[in-house]
Amino acid sequence: MRLGFLFLSSSSSSVVGSSISRSIVRPAPSLLLHRPFHFIPNRTTTYSNRFQFSPRTTLTASASSMASTFKPEQARVPPALQLPSPPITKFKIGLCQLSVTADKERNIVHARAAIEEAAEKGAKLVVLPEIWNSPYSNDSFPIYAEDIDAGPDASPSTAMLSEAARLLKITIVGGSIPERSGDKLYNTCCVFDADGKLKAKHRKIHLFDIDIPGKITFKESQTLTAGETPTVVDTEVGRIGIGICYDIRFQELAMLYAARGAHLICYPGAFNMTTGPLHWELLQRARAVDNQLYVATCAPARDVGGGYVAWGHSTLIGPFGEVLATTEHDEAIIISEIDYSQIDLRRTNLPLEKQRRGDLYQLVDVQRSSSQ
Amino acid sequence: MRLGFLFLSSSSSSVVGSSISRSIVRPAPSLLLHRPFHFIPNRTTTYSNRFQFSPRTTLTASASSMASTFKPEQARVPPALQLPSPPITKFKIGLCQLSVTADKERNIVHARAAIEEAAEKGAKLVVLPEIWNSPYSNDSFPIYAEDIDAGPDASPSTAMLSEAARLLKITIVGGSIPERSGDKLYNTCCVFDADGKLKAKHRKIHLFDIDIPGKITFKESQTLTAGETPTVVDTEVGRIGIGICYDIRFQELAMLYAARGAHLICYPGAFNMTTGPLHWELLQRARAVDNQLYVATCAPARDVGGGYVAWGHSTLIGPFGEVLATTEHDEAIIISEIDYSQIDLRRTNLPLEKQRRGDLYQLVDVQRSSSQ
Repeated sequence: MRLGFLFLSSSSSSVVGSSISRSIVRPAPSLLLHRPFHFIPNRTTTYSNRFQFSPRTTLTASASSMASTFKPEQARVPPALQLPSPPITKFKIGLCQLSVTADKERNIVHARAAIEEAAEKGAKLVVLPEIWNSPYSNDSFPIYAEDIDAGPDASPSTAMLSEAARLLKITIVGGSIPERSGDKLYNTCCVFDADGKLKAKHRKIHLFDIDIPGKITFKESQTLTAGETPTVVDTEVGRIGIGICYDIRFQELAMLYAARGAHLICYPGAFNMTTGPLHWELLQRARAVDNQLYVATCAPARDVGGGYVAWGHSTLIGPFGEVLATTEHDEAIIISEIDYSQIDLRRTNLPLEKQRRGDLYQLVDVQRSSSQ
Repeated sequence: MRLGFLFLSSSSSSVVGSSISRSIVRPAPSLLLHRPFHFIPNRTTTYSNRFQFSPRTTLTASASSMASTFKPEQARVPPALQLPSPPITKFKIGLCQLSVTADKERNIVHARAAIEEAAEKGAKLVVLPEIWNSPYSNDSFPIYAEDIDAGPDASPSTAMLSEAARLLKITIVGGSIPERSGDKLYNTCCVFDADGKLKAKHRKIHLFDIDIPGKITFKESQTLTAGETPTVVDTEVGRIGIGICYDIRFQELAMLYAARGAHLICYPGAFNMTTGPLHWELLQRARAVDNQLYVATCAPARDVGGGYVAWGHSTLIGPFGEVLATTEHDEAIIISEIDYSQIDLRRTNLPLEKQRRGDLYQLVDVQRSSSQ
């Protein structure tokens, strides 16, 4: 029987996308991509002495001929950094899923008590929820906002975090609060090291503007301004990338943090009753498994009488995408263990970084590229 | 009381990563990235008349001042394409989770019967499993491999697919078979249009080389060569991106397909008893929700006596990351409905594409960039 079998020819292909002839020698495009920008001296950035940026050398050492063809190191521009070796690599994390009220003073006292309890239970790193000192609403943000850069009197919420970190000798990823800076408001996460020093300030990069009619409509951009810088910070408990809530939907941010050598990404977040059950755990597990690192989230407890009802379910995810600890929607302090040797193990099991195809796709970290 | 509150100053910052001064005017780096390569005439690629590449115009039309600052259209290089309008936008898909034996002739007859059954049940698109004509092993690949480009006599497996597609007037994403081409072997998926024409041939890009001691160790690269081209193909049931099994672990490929305007990504795949329960559904849902498109997977049925025991669980995922249809590990033909208007709906609910930060990260589609 004659089969109706028509073969693909190069002239009649209807394949969408490019499939450039393999015989064409391209002018080393990846070299262009590695330095896409002119060099700009960067006077505002200094790096921790403890954790120097250095290109991964493991790839070179173990590169097969396959790897050299596929240019896995070029799948990140600039190339991915080696995981640093922080002073503490195995420790307890505390996720404080707090109830939040309209009484800011109470919220601060309440958060402090939770931090102290987590520290008593052995946590060396404590994470708070998104917007823990204020109701989550565009009406509240301007009223509860604090000028973090203006000192402790202007920012009692972060002053408490600084003191708690110093006295308890722990690192705090301080959830987020509304921040006032000049005439702008931000949704801002402050990270304090165990000496009480403000190590980093992450302003939510992707504002929560969504519209699911009949379910949830919210426009943070009505009051807030988006941050302009990804935030990765070296602490004694590792290199930590910070995202706030809606930031977690953008896989590029987590990829960029992984390429900067993060062990852990912390996402304070307040997903809602629509997107929470649909996506909250899914997104956390996806970021962890795709980037082979730890992901920790911390949400406010659910207040069904509140204007914005949070999903809760603060969670710690391991680098294999596994749920290590989680909770329901009531107030809770989750204590769970992080062990960064698990990252090395999973990256040995599934050596994704060596298998990426820099000859086909490249993720550019724009600010890191321009600073080099 | 004097609080131990130390403020972050620009000179003492230990934030890792770049945070370039916002007052520095950069020399339009994105323009460089938009055309990172010299133009190379691409004589091997033609595009379907039906679905012309065209840059998304919706962004320009609805761009807010925020969007123009954040350059969301530059988060993909080249910019993401508009979703095309295929002839059929709502249809039934059939996922044939087949048992696979060492008898190739039986496998072909068996697959044909399943395709016919799916078509009888209304499927306009049928998907087969990874390596459906051969046992999944490095020993078997060379023996069962077919020279697809050499015509129907040299490739009875794909000849059957072509005939079935033509006679049943359906599109077939033909799972994968071991392909021989010259002295190389590939893990290859053929896509046939409703006229029986071979529309695309995807060679697995990311070979399955993993090592989880005591659980699963496999090195496809012992026998197979990796493909060199992402594959997106226009069919009457939409623009379909193809990945094979381990390809699903690389989020960049799905991002690249979404930027090329894919409605649906099909991943024939045979995850195993270790990674299957851990990651199979997670990865599918992650690709769907992050890229807001449909994801369909098709696995072989489980054969506990086989050398490689497959997890099964073929699944259809919607653009909100929702499991629309799935099955356990036995033989099954899943029939479920796809409706591309759901993609538009979800992208309106969560306008991620307009919210991406092209000023901070950019995913470069290397081959599409070099062809423009």
